[in-house]
Amino acid sequence: MQHPDQDPPPVGTGDDAGERSTIEKTLSLVGDRWTILVLRASFRGIRRFDDFCNDLGIARPILTARLRKLVAAGLMTKELYQERPPRYEYRLTPSGIALSPAIVALVRWGDEHMATGAPTTRLVHAPCGTELEQGFWCRSCATTFGPGAIRGVPTGDGHDR
Amino acid sequence: MQHPDQDPPPVGTGDDAGERSTIEKTLSLVGDRWTILVLRASFRGIRRFDDFCNDLGIARPILTARLRKLVAAGLMTKELYQERPPRYEYRLTPSGIALSPAIVALVRWGDEHMATGAPTTRLVHAPCGTELEQGFWCRSCATTFGPGAIRGVPTGDGHDR
Repeated sequence: MQHPDQDPPPVGTGDDAGERSTIEKTLSLVGDRWTILVLRASFRGIRRFDDFCNDLGIARPILTARLRKLVAAGLMTKELYQERPPRYEYRLTPSGIALSPAIVALVRWGDEHMATGAPTTRLVHAPCGTELEQGFWCRSCATTFGPGAIRGVPTGDGHDR
Repeated sequence: MQHPDQDPPPVGTGDDAGERSTIEKTLSLVGDRWTILVLRASFRGIRRFDDFCNDLGIARPILTARLRKLVAAGLMTKELYQERPPRYEYRLTPSGIALSPAIVALVRWGDEHMATGAPTTRLVHAPCGTELEQGFWCRSCATTFGPGAIRGVPTGDGHDR
């Protein structure tokens, strides 16, 4: 029953290649530590190159590369805010803001399940200071629910499975 | 102002090294395509080696490696369900189940922002079939809210920032 020589199906072919390559593209964009830390800083309201540097202790060439990638992917915009010397602000686009549930969930899971010490930051609901919870929400039933109540439904578009 | 030779701070040192290395550990565990697809299949109720193979079209050695990693990290358990020949079931632990908001958010964001075609699957609230929404929830205010209402609060434990 073992087929040790069997190659994985190449990306871009096969029944659910679209799904696989979407996940791969997503991970190649946001699946690295510095990118996630840059996005987190951005969610906290940091916009200027030097402020990212100071906040994150990130080397300038690395920050430059990550910001360039995020701008190219449409997750951030780059705007001149001072001409001499030229200085830029980086702001999240709606597409970048839409990543926040994923980043928050990943970081919170890591804090709870992978950290050796206590997390340095708690994320709270700003108006009241209560630690946030994350969940799934059904608009029809007006209820939150856990992962056990999720079902995947084929769309009929794209590839069938 | 440029320091092109500046190295990034090594992982494991510095003010917020704990935070950085937690993110790095999290990504090294779940930041690859096959691992995410295996976890997704598991969320859908798939438990047996051959069923993972058939569902995902994954090569057996790759599946073996990913399952081994997930079991070693405490995200899944491996249990014998048949003795001759030996066959195992892989089930999510509470720690694995706790990853679902992160995986769901990442996959949904990819479907919406990175896919070239329509997604193959919609995730719905099983009892009613309504597409799920994901959000942040405040228990005190009994309200959902968006990323704009999140604030990070230093815990005072661990490293100060």
